[in-house]
Amino acid sequence: MVITNGIAPTSAPSTVGTPTISPPPPITDPLPYVSLKTGLCYDVRMRYHAKIVTNAYDYTDPHPEDPRRVYRIYKALAEAGLVDMKGASGAEHIGGKLMQHIPAREATKEEVTLVHEIKHWDFIERTASMTQDELVEETDNGDSVYFNNESWFCAKLSCGGVIDTCKAVVRGDVKNAIAVVRPPGHHAEPYKPAGFCMFNNVAVASRVILKEFPEQVKKILILDWDIHHGNGTQRAFYNDPNVLYISLHRYDNGKFYPGGTFGNYDKVGEGPGEGRNVNIPWPCGGMGDGDYIYAFQRTVMPIAEEFGPDLVILSSGFDAAPGDELGECFVSPAAYGHMTHMLKSLAHGKLAVVLEGGYNLDSIATSALGVTKVLIGDAPIPLTNVYARPEAVQTVDKVSRTQARFWKCMKIGHMIHDLPEAPAVERLQDIIRRYQASQLFAHFSMTKLPIFRDRISRSFEDQVLCTPGFQSAKTVVVIVHDPPDVWTEPDPVTGQISLHDTFVMDAEIKYIQWAHQKGYGVVDINAPAVFTDQEDEGYNVQAALQDLCLYVWDNYLDLSDARNFVFVGVGEACGGHVYLLGHREVRERVRAAIAFAGAKTVFPIVPIMDEFITDWYYKNSLVLTSSNHPMWEQSNGGKNPRKKYGNVQKTEYETMNELLIGKYSDVIAFAEEDIEESSSEEEDAGPDRKRLKNDGSSDEGLVDGVIPTSAAIM
Amino acid sequence: MVITNGIAPTSAPSTVGTPTISPPPPITDPLPYVSLKTGLCYDVRMRYHAKIVTNAYDYTDPHPEDPRRVYRIYKALAEAGLVDMKGASGAEHIGGKLMQHIPAREATKEEVTLVHEIKHWDFIERTASMTQDELVEETDNGDSVYFNNESWFCAKLSCGGVIDTCKAVVRGDVKNAIAVVRPPGHHAEPYKPAGFCMFNNVAVASRVILKEFPEQVKKILILDWDIHHGNGTQRAFYNDPNVLYISLHRYDNGKFYPGGTFGNYDKVGEGPGEGRNVNIPWPCGGMGDGDYIYAFQRTVMPIAEEFGPDLVILSSGFDAAPGDELGECFVSPAAYGHMTHMLKSLAHGKLAVVLEGGYNLDSIATSALGVTKVLIGDAPIPLTNVYARPEAVQTVDKVSRTQARFWKCMKIGHMIHDLPEAPAVERLQDIIRRYQASQLFAHFSMTKLPIFRDRISRSFEDQVLCTPGFQSAKTVVVIVHDPPDVWTEPDPVTGQISLHDTFVMDAEIKYIQWAHQKGYGVVDINAPAVFTDQEDEGYNVQAALQDLCLYVWDNYLDLSDARNFVFVGVGEACGGHVYLLGHREVRERVRAAIAFAGAKTVFPIVPIMDEFITDWYYKNSLVLTSSNHPMWEQSNGGKNPRKKYGNVQKTEYETMNELLIGKYSDVIAFAEEDIEESSSEEEDAGPDRKRLKNDGSSDEGLVDGVIPTSAAIM
Ligand SMILES: [Zn+2]
Ligand SMILES: [Zn+2]
Repeated sequence: MVITNGIAPTSAPSTVGTPTISPPPPITDPLPYVSLKTGLCYDVRMRYHAKIVTNAYDYTDPHPEDPRRVYRIYKALAEAGLVDMKGASGAEHIGGKLMQHIPAREATKEEVTLVHEIKHWDFIERTASMTQDELVEETDNGDSVYFNNESWFCAKLSCGGVIDTCKAVVRGDVKNAIAVVRPPGHHAEPYKPAGFCMFNNVAVASRVILKEFPEQVKKILILDWDIHHGNGTQRAFYNDPNVLYISLHRYDNGKFYPGGTFGNYDKVGEGPGEGRNVNIPWPCGGMGDGDYIYAFQRTVMPIAEEFGPDLVILSSGFDAAPGDELGECFVSPAAYGHMTHMLKSLAHGKLAVVLEGGYNLDSIATSALGVTKVLIGDAPIPLTNVYARPEAVQTVDKVSRTQARFWKCMKIGHMIHDLPEAPAVERLQDIIRRYQASQLFAHFSMTKLPIFRDRISRSFEDQVLCTPGFQSAKTVVVIVHDPPDVWTEPDPVTGQISLHDTFVMDAEIKYIQWAHQKGYGVVDINAPAVFTDQEDEGYNVQAALQDLCLYVWDNYLDLSDARNFVFVGVGEACGGHVYLLGHREVRERVRAAIAFAGAKTVFPIVPIMDEFITDWYYKNSLVLTSSNHPMWEQSNGGKNPRKKYGNVQKTEYETMNELLIGKYSDVIAFAEEDIEESSSEEEDAGPDRKRLKNDGSSDEGLVDGVIPTSAAIM
Repeated sequence: MVITNGIAPTSAPSTVGTPTISPPPPITDPLPYVSLKTGLCYDVRMRYHAKIVTNAYDYTDPHPEDPRRVYRIYKALAEAGLVDMKGASGAEHIGGKLMQHIPAREATKEEVTLVHEIKHWDFIERTASMTQDELVEETDNGDSVYFNNESWFCAKLSCGGVIDTCKAVVRGDVKNAIAVVRPPGHHAEPYKPAGFCMFNNVAVASRVILKEFPEQVKKILILDWDIHHGNGTQRAFYNDPNVLYISLHRYDNGKFYPGGTFGNYDKVGEGPGEGRNVNIPWPCGGMGDGDYIYAFQRTVMPIAEEFGPDLVILSSGFDAAPGDELGECFVSPAAYGHMTHMLKSLAHGKLAVVLEGGYNLDSIATSALGVTKVLIGDAPIPLTNVYARPEAVQTVDKVSRTQARFWKCMKIGHMIHDLPEAPAVERLQDIIRRYQASQLFAHFSMTKLPIFRDRISRSFEDQVLCTPGFQSAKTVVVIVHDPPDVWTEPDPVTGQISLHDTFVMDAEIKYIQWAHQKGYGVVDINAPAVFTDQEDEGYNVQAALQDLCLYVWDNYLDLSDARNFVFVGVGEACGGHVYLLGHREVRERVRAAIAFAGAKTVFPIVPIMDEFITDWYYKNSLVLTSSNHPMWEQSNGGKNPRKKYGNVQKTEYETMNELLIGKYSDVIAFAEEDIEESSSEEEDAGPDRKRLKNDGSSDEGLVDGVIPTSAAIM
């Protein structure tokens, strides 16, 4: 069939269903699957569909869905020796020792309309006889799709090729197959073409297989690793329990093509198809081998095995490959090979790979080669990047939790019940703050410091505590801290935590004990990680904390008798005291600023009031970071941070609790030295520090004593 | 080489290192791996090693390490058409289209002593010339191992066969291979034979490969799925960073052969080999496909991929197969195939499978066939059992947590820090009980009920609260409950829970509100899941709770003025009130016994004091179970439980919190009806129930009001 006049011929029914495929090997073959070749569907005529050139840009910057795409893949397979390339057109001569040609043929109206509305078919048919101007107009009006007079023919050829590829796999003419076809299909909706796609090749083929092989194929898995969500395929089977659609794609909060929320993880199918749709929506670009392998091991393969498909069709775009300007990801040919290898373990190996997108001609060629080698039986190339990024882990976790309602394998370790909307549900952070408050009252008589609310969030009302009479103490320790750490091991089966195996680690209390014992006043400010009060939602915690620190300074600390202040920050809450130090005249009275930053943000001081504050801060601060703080990573050059961040030290500790306990003696010594200096003229009200200091164990002995837990609040 | 005199010949160095393997295919082959055959090492002479018959039992109940083992596997491969079987002995004629023979040859002293001590070699050598009596004596004295005069020859043949199998794979003479050899090797320690094993074939082969192919093979993965721990292999590489040993085996708390703790999950290697030993120790028999596949997807494959081996050697016992009397597990040929398929994705497919144990002759034949077909290139048979048991999930979780110190892939979702031994660490259950107490004090003026301790655990001291003057109330509600549920979603990356995304659900308070509003007295007993007080460790919580309930009854409730008691149990704590009902005369005053059993134990009443109590309990109780309570499972027949369990009802709710909220109206109605009946002669002190009842929304309106959380304790 040769196209000469720009008008595609009508479909040729004589070739439908009778592709020239050699008979299966004799039954005496002990492992017939091993003897079979891998099918290859390729037809040079698919290049006829092309964008009509309307301006100079079309030459310099051709449309990504470029007619050369299929040829470049075919050429890569041929150059690797996987197929014999006899002659330029190739179509009739493809084959060889390893691969077997599956001819493409035009899909019929009957087949295509198993998925698409008749008006959709009719519209594509009309493009074959449209004028140049009409075609350009339809191209401009369409949803990212272009047309010429060959589009209809090519769309039918692509779709028919995919149908016959799947049939060849199901019949066992080949052990598996790859269809190198265009235009692609997975964006084509049942009612319209979209996203470079005219007919949804994979969806149509799935419907044909389910119809024509009802005994052999009851369930089909469509795995779609094109970087775009296959909205059309999802739509076609959204309420069908017999077709499981799993897609890994960039989602970017609905901003990535095709956009909207249809590709989000919570779209799980509906009606009888509920639970038969799995979206793995990446939040950003840059995803690579480790992320995809992780998703396969954690979600794709367990669900696929539980589903138990009779046929796997792979919607194989290669736009997640490095070099693809649309995808911006880094999935290597090795990883494509590994994923193909995993999919081969399903459905007795019946796997049909179908080209979808992928627009870097080099990338799609090497990626397709990686897939095809593994289809033929080669071992995958070992992976070099096996680490999943946090973004991938978080996404896969969300998917697993969502799918746990439908798949037993996904229930493991997940509490599948939503948080009830019931009364008597309290945030643990509030409970623990009240517990802290009761402890501080019981042991140190600490009470609430009144906050007369103006700009200050109501959520901070219960969060500031003080020792009685701190206003007249010579030395006041101001502690601004995050909620304490919680240590737990959730049940690996149910994901539940048990209250008796969960521990709250509140090592800050050591520092209050120290101050109490010294006779210092104490002000303790708790910074919740989020606000509990409905009213405060959306109010930035860090900004609110900064306001609160200024408020406490202006209304209490600045007006007190104290000559010495020691500031202690713990966690993200350090931002509060560092902000205060930069925004008020504090140099004369603040003797030490200690920040337990741990692995959290190290805040720079901003010299608003006092140009010398940066030097002062560097000299009088101790900023303690954990060994795993990002600032110490090689990639950050390992340089010491600038002076405005204070006297930053790397410690050997990892957790905040370890840091608070491990650096206790150093911090106390640092704070006391500065207090001593400042008050050498005049004696402090506290006990004789010198005596205590000579008796080193005395300090430690007191603070190590566990607070008796029987001192309950009631 | 023919053995006629019972004495094995000395090793024949002329064959060492020069097996008769055909040259690799020409370089023009596009996918040389695909063209290669799978190697098969098999030698009929390995059957010469046999247990000397000393009594009649040896005939009727032959030793499991039976000489027929290797032949039965070979026969299965031949019957499946994978190898041509020409003549009975076969050895020289093995081969065919799919497989290639790898001749066995005797390992040399130089090779064997790369792993084993010379005295070990010398001892095995001596067995070749021992008398019958000496052999029997050594057999009796050994650690589960037997000897005859051919043992030395067979041990060398088995070991040499494995060495050359691995060499053939490394050199690329074959794409992969299976060595059907005996005696097995993985229990053989560097210094002694053990567990049917003489030389550690896999360990010796690994050492030879590392020595002779230093450029090609720098790292070896040994995967051991024999149902027994490969103690000898683990020992041989325990401090070697270049050999990663991963074993899945039954451990049974150290009671399964080879016993002791060497096979536990915390044995991770030492010195430079720390983190290069992974034990996956099953706690019991009955493990099946889903468990093994889960372990592979979650731990084995991620670690193996992160390790990046150059060669994989599979210590392939088949004693986890169904029918093996030692293993008692259910790993199907399909699962063996799937695991083999996964391992093929490592190390460019360089995989050498080596027979270890497996004692059911039919099972080892079908299992080995499953593995070999996949080695050759067949698609694995689809899995039918894909569900991991809780025991498997728990084991894999322990392994992952332990290995998280060494493998980045295992860190995901795990808090790798141990709970610090620091001060100021509190169990969350204690914090929450104090919070509950503060709430009950704030809203209902409830205070501690004094418990004068005798048999009662000190841990219960803070756990009993009461409303003021409950002793003179006409109606008292006694609530015995577990700690409240906690709802959380741990961070999938770090495993940490955040206090602001963790919620405590304390719906019981609705029932206290109801009682309070009615003017009833309330006694609230909290039953901790474990005791916090050191002194009480090991003291059974359920027994202690029963004691406490009797104590509260005898010392307070029985002596009170109350004419009506309503008992409400929540969770496992229901055991407390059901025990009390059976052990005291309560029928006259207890009007209703409500048990929110949820998915927990449903306790039967034991009629100690009153023979009619069972009927009474059935009539006056409401035992509410969740829809997923095990008693409703099909396998339990779905029958209603007997009368002694009370009036048990299946609800539509799953969690305790849903149950408490969802059944609120029913429970209140049930309780009030009984109270009404009993006090019809005399008016109750509470508000007019009738009026409230006519105004249905009044009940609900009051109890649904959220308790203001600002009413803090300070
Ligand atoms: Zn795409
Ligand atoms: Zn074994």
